[in-house]
Amino acid sequence: MNKNIGQTMYSWAEDLFPICRSITGPGVRETLLYFKEILPDLKIYSVPTGTKAFDWTVPNEWFIQDAYIKDRHGNKIIDFANNNLHLVGYSEPIDEWMDLSALNDHLYSLPDQPNAIPYVTSYYDTNWGFCLTHRQRELLKKEQYHVVIESELKHGVLNYGELIIKGKTDEEVLLSTYICHPSMANNELSGPVVTAGIAQWINSLKNQRYTYRIVFIPETIGSIVYLSKNLKHMKEHTIAGLVLTCIGDDRDYSLLPSRSGDTLIDRVSSYALNHYVKSYTRYSYLDRGSDERQYCSPGIDLPVCSIMRTKYHAYPEYHTSLDDLSLISSDGLKGGFDIIKKTIEMLEFNQVYKSKNPCEPQLGRYDLYPTISVKESKEYELSKIMVDVLAYTDGYNDILEISRIICEDFFTVHEAIKTLIDNELVILK
Amino acid sequence: MNKNIGQTMYSWAEDLFPICRSITGPGVRETLLYFKEILPDLKIYSVPTGTKAFDWTVPNEWFIQDAYIKDRHGNKIIDFANNNLHLVGYSEPIDEWMDLSALNDHLYSLPDQPNAIPYVTSYYDTNWGFCLTHRQRELLKKEQYHVVIESELKHGVLNYGELIIKGKTDEEVLLSTYICHPSMANNELSGPVVTAGIAQWINSLKNQRYTYRIVFIPETIGSIVYLSKNLKHMKEHTIAGLVLTCIGDDRDYSLLPSRSGDTLIDRVSSYALNHYVKSYTRYSYLDRGSDERQYCSPGIDLPVCSIMRTKYHAYPEYHTSLDDLSLISSDGLKGGFDIIKKTIEMLEFNQVYKSKNPCEPQLGRYDLYPTISVKESKEYELSKIMVDVLAYTDGYNDILEISRIICEDFFTVHEAIKTLIDNELVILK
Amino acid sequence: MNKNIGQTMYSWAEDLFPICRSITGPGVRETLLYFKEILPDLKIYSVPTGTKAFDWTVPNEWFIQDAYIKDRHGNKIIDFANNNLHLVGYSEPIDEWMDLSALNDHLYSLPDQPNAIPYVTSYYDTNWGFCLTHRQRELLKKEQYHVVIESELKHGVLNYGELIIKGKTDEEVLLSTYICHPSMANNELSGPVVTAGIAQWINSLKNQRYTYRIVFIPETIGSIVYLSKNLKHMKEHTIAGLVLTCIGDDRDYSLLPSRSGDTLIDRVSSYALNHYVKSYTRYSYLDRGSDERQYCSPGIDLPVCSIMRTKYHAYPEYHTSLDDLSLISSDGLKGGFDIIKKTIEMLEFNQVYKSKNPCEPQLGRYDLYPTISVKESKEYELSKIMVDVLAYTDGYNDILEISRIICEDFFTVHEAIKTLIDNELVILK
Repeated sequence: MNKNIGQTMYSWAEDLFPICRSITGPGVRETLLYFKEILPDLKIYSVPTGTKAFDWTVPNEWFIQDAYIKDRHGNKIIDFANNNLHLVGYSEPIDEWMDLSALNDHLYSLPDQPNAIPYVTSYYDTNWGFCLTHRQRELLKKEQYHVVIESELKHGVLNYGELIIKGKTDEEVLLSTYICHPSMANNELSGPVVTAGIAQWINSLKNQRYTYRIVFIPETIGSIVYLSKNLKHMKEHTIAGLVLTCIGDDRDYSLLPSRSGDTLIDRVSSYALNHYVKSYTRYSYLDRGSDERQYCSPGIDLPVCSIMRTKYHAYPEYHTSLDDLSLISSDGLKGGFDIIKKTIEMLEFNQVYKSKNPCEPQLGRYDLYPTISVKESKEYELSKIMVDVLAYTDGYNDILEISRIICEDFFTVHEAIKTLIDNELVILK
Repeated sequence: MNKNIGQTMYSWAEDLFPICRSITGPGVRETLLYFKEILPDLKIYSVPTGTKAFDWTVPNEWFIQDAYIKDRHGNKIIDFANNNLHLVGYSEPIDEWMDLSALNDHLYSLPDQPNAIPYVTSYYDTNWGFCLTHRQRELLKKEQYHVVIESELKHGVLNYGELIIKGKTDEEVLLSTYICHPSMANNELSGPVVTAGIAQWINSLKNQRYTYRIVFIPETIGSIVYLSKNLKHMKEHTIAGLVLTCIGDDRDYSLLPSRSGDTLIDRVSSYALNHYVKSYTRYSYLDRGSDERQYCSPGIDLPVCSIMRTKYHAYPEYHTSLDDLSLISSDGLKGGFDIIKKTIEMLEFNQVYKSKNPCEPQLGRYDLYPTISVKESKEYELSKIMVDVLAYTDGYNDILEISRIICEDFFTVHEAIKTLIDNELVILK
Repeated sequence: MNKNIGQTMYSWAEDLFPICRSITGPGVRETLLYFKEILPDLKIYSVPTGTKAFDWTVPNEWFIQDAYIKDRHGNKIIDFANNNLHLVGYSEPIDEWMDLSALNDHLYSLPDQPNAIPYVTSYYDTNWGFCLTHRQRELLKKEQYHVVIESELKHGVLNYGELIIKGKTDEEVLLSTYICHPSMANNELSGPVVTAGIAQWINSLKNQRYTYRIVFIPETIGSIVYLSKNLKHMKEHTIAGLVLTCIGDDRDYSLLPSRSGDTLIDRVSSYALNHYVKSYTRYSYLDRGSDERQYCSPGIDLPVCSIMRTKYHAYPEYHTSLDDLSLISSDGLKGGFDIIKKTIEMLEFNQVYKSKNPCEPQLGRYDLYPTISVKESKEYELSKIMVDVLAYTDGYNDILEISRIICEDFFTVHEAIKTLIDNELVILK
């Protein structure tokens, strides 16, 4: 499967790209149903408008039929049908003629990126607006325009998807991604498609140690609603978590640490990025911008990092129409998939062991040490790792820490410990 | 008031400069009475000769009328009336003719600073002596001199002043300065005049949080006597303290940390000097030399630092007649006053807060966040500090620590927290 | 005594050099009896073949009479009588003619050190072999050779020596050295002869604080057997330990830290090597190679370092016939003796003290401080150390920590504390 996982994920992104998602509405449901095809056990939940979640309230659901601006000749000069970024998210309905100066208060463009349509939303305040390229805007004349938005804001639901994959223990790993942005590729679709790929891979595992809680939610309001419903359970069971977003381009790898910065997932993520990708950018928690804002907030305090490729805000196409399918690639998605997979494998393997006997065991008896002692023999070099691992399987160090101390790769140490377990020389603490 | 506080403090120093202070005697009383004019609530205490204080005993009181050396022609070649530094502090009475070689054992001058009269004392061993410039000394001839000291050492008292300014809590801040040196400016008068200025300012405050314990004492024996009388109370209530000395010249700022180096006042003082003066010298506790020696000693262990301008021992005029009124200035005193005031404001404001809600609050509801989300909008930058402060008001971090973590000025963070309190989003822990 | 201790130790090494030691057998006993002459209280123990010790079993005892290889003319071309390194340790008996290709499987030489006979053993697997210089090996022809080893491997004993020197307390310092290598000087004899010299010196002390447990054991199996017999007592009483090996040449000094790296003996050894030798190499615990492997292993966890001169593996003559008496010297041994002695003196002196009085005592009363205060007087400089020591005798800092804080030599601080104790100003915590 893995051979084509990059292409597979890319094709999912192609399918999902045209859908007009927002934090609520039909686009979210369509997206969640698509992932339910891939992950049949995905459960889709609905939370009614008006539901309280900590300091927040689930807003009205937004339905959008059509939206355009016509000039006095009846030409559609801006048309939502061409690009769903043209409309400010959660725009209220309107059907009015107005002159350019009145219209200008509701237009958004980027003078520094004149060919990009910006992505703008106004979820929690009644408003409307259109986004357009600066080139388009410069063509507007001081005349009357006909502005039409056929939308509805009414009592409805907020949807999210949840997939629980049971492991041998009820300790949980949280994977969280969002499905609330319209047609953008790296900052939206890369997150859910890599999450879906990882979920398929976890499903294929036998006997994994942890239970995986995988959520597809609208950003911010979705994680807040989800936490308000599941907080007690998550605080008791979550040993690590990752927010998956901006994980499909080919430029960088990135780590956004948790608020405390020293949890297990911080240690594992740092190790994985230090060892298994060529280079990466380590951000501060001050650079956060997605649902780790909620997961790590005071009172929630879950151990959650974000491993990304090029981070939101760190690439010029971010939150514009230029963040399209050409910005991500099957290789880029595959790179994201691989580092998340490696991180999860490390989480699964990382345990604390202790030696069964005081003193070194007589490794020669187990064919793990040369029986003849000759200066600088190669056999000795090969068995040195067994001796060094045994020096630190003291019931306190986990594999990650032993790997650091003895300067050997995590998976090499894990293999050594498997051999020592087979020979009944170390046991799980 | 503050506009002229520098000049005001300088004029106090001018008034006090001529008085011949020592660790006991009329000069101390005259000085304390002067400060009682400025601070009417100042209480002046008397501790009798012979009183035990830990390993120490209050010495006899020293009274000095006159002192001089006459040559064989009857000319006063050294005269206490000209400069009270000419006489070794606590000199016993004498009226004798002696030749130069006998006299030399009782003369003190500084060959490397030939125009300076050194400051010399002998509090705890019976002795007498004269201090003179090396230029003066070189003029002495191998002949008889008439040495007269009209002093008395007799049972009396040691005096000190104490001002308690009550705050909302009984947690205390100690401000300690000394009033035992004769006519010297930076290393003596700068300390008590800045302390008096700060005391006036604290008196002008409404509702300050801490109680202020402000003491004007003779150095060493005074702090030891004061501690012996007030130790239990001070150990229970003191949350921070400052020794104020050498705080009136224009050259440097200095920080002498407490013995442990990591108390609240160490953190606040370091922050204040790092941020609110252009540069400063950070000393080691090994460089200590004033009453922090007692306040921080094992068994006392109060959290006390010293914020200075140019530190004792660190300027050539120290402990000589060159440390006169030209060495300090109203600007120098004002600089000292300002940094102490800033430090106390930080102490007053520095508290631990916690967010009322789990997750981020919906800041848009409180007009603390833009309701429309546009890439790189300025509103977002302005509200970022609210979001960052909320990320760390977790019931553990104080304002100082939040300021360090989010790289924003202490007072900016304090203002943000005030806004968040007004909106009932954070509460005092 | 110390004047000639280097020569004395060197002469012991000369006496012991020719003996063919191994992990068991007559050579070990002869060596232990030699040390019993020097240290009459040394007890020699015997542990029977087959005794279990953790994961290990005491092997058969090895007796070697003679061993040689003759060519077809009857010339002894390799002869154990010439150098006991010619024979692989624990070789089984043989008396056979064989051609060169069969013989080659049992020959060991070092192409990169063509004039060195390597040291090879095979304690725990039945085998035989000869070691020779690569020059010798190059002379061998494709013809028949007569191989004779007159050895016996039979039920016997493993021997070790133990010397307990009682101190005022039952807290113990472990000194461990090994006596299982044949004719090699730095990596064998330097260890036991310096240990014997140190034992003589400790015997000469009056009232030392600690009890000294000094063991002469075969490496690895000896320490494992010794630990299996004494573990409970040693875990309860051992406050520090040193493995003494490779401590007789003139090249380097070396420190191999304990597994945790921060125990008392780590702190003391680091200080001693930093201050009392010109330079040294600090190794990682990953570079370990002697009995600290057992003493520090999980489940044993004794605080044991190794102070060496040039470490095993770090000099080219290691484990070859070139590690002979020319490699060590009386000066080299003396240097090793001196640093071990200094380390033990520091262990003995290092205690925690506290001041008797709050505040500084009135040091002038005890003649420990000048009674006259004059700027920059020398008396003040001399008494500064008393004041600084008193600032840190707080019942928490030991001498080593005070020495570090106040930047004064350990023994200077110790002398100051003795003076303060004599004046009843500080007491043992």
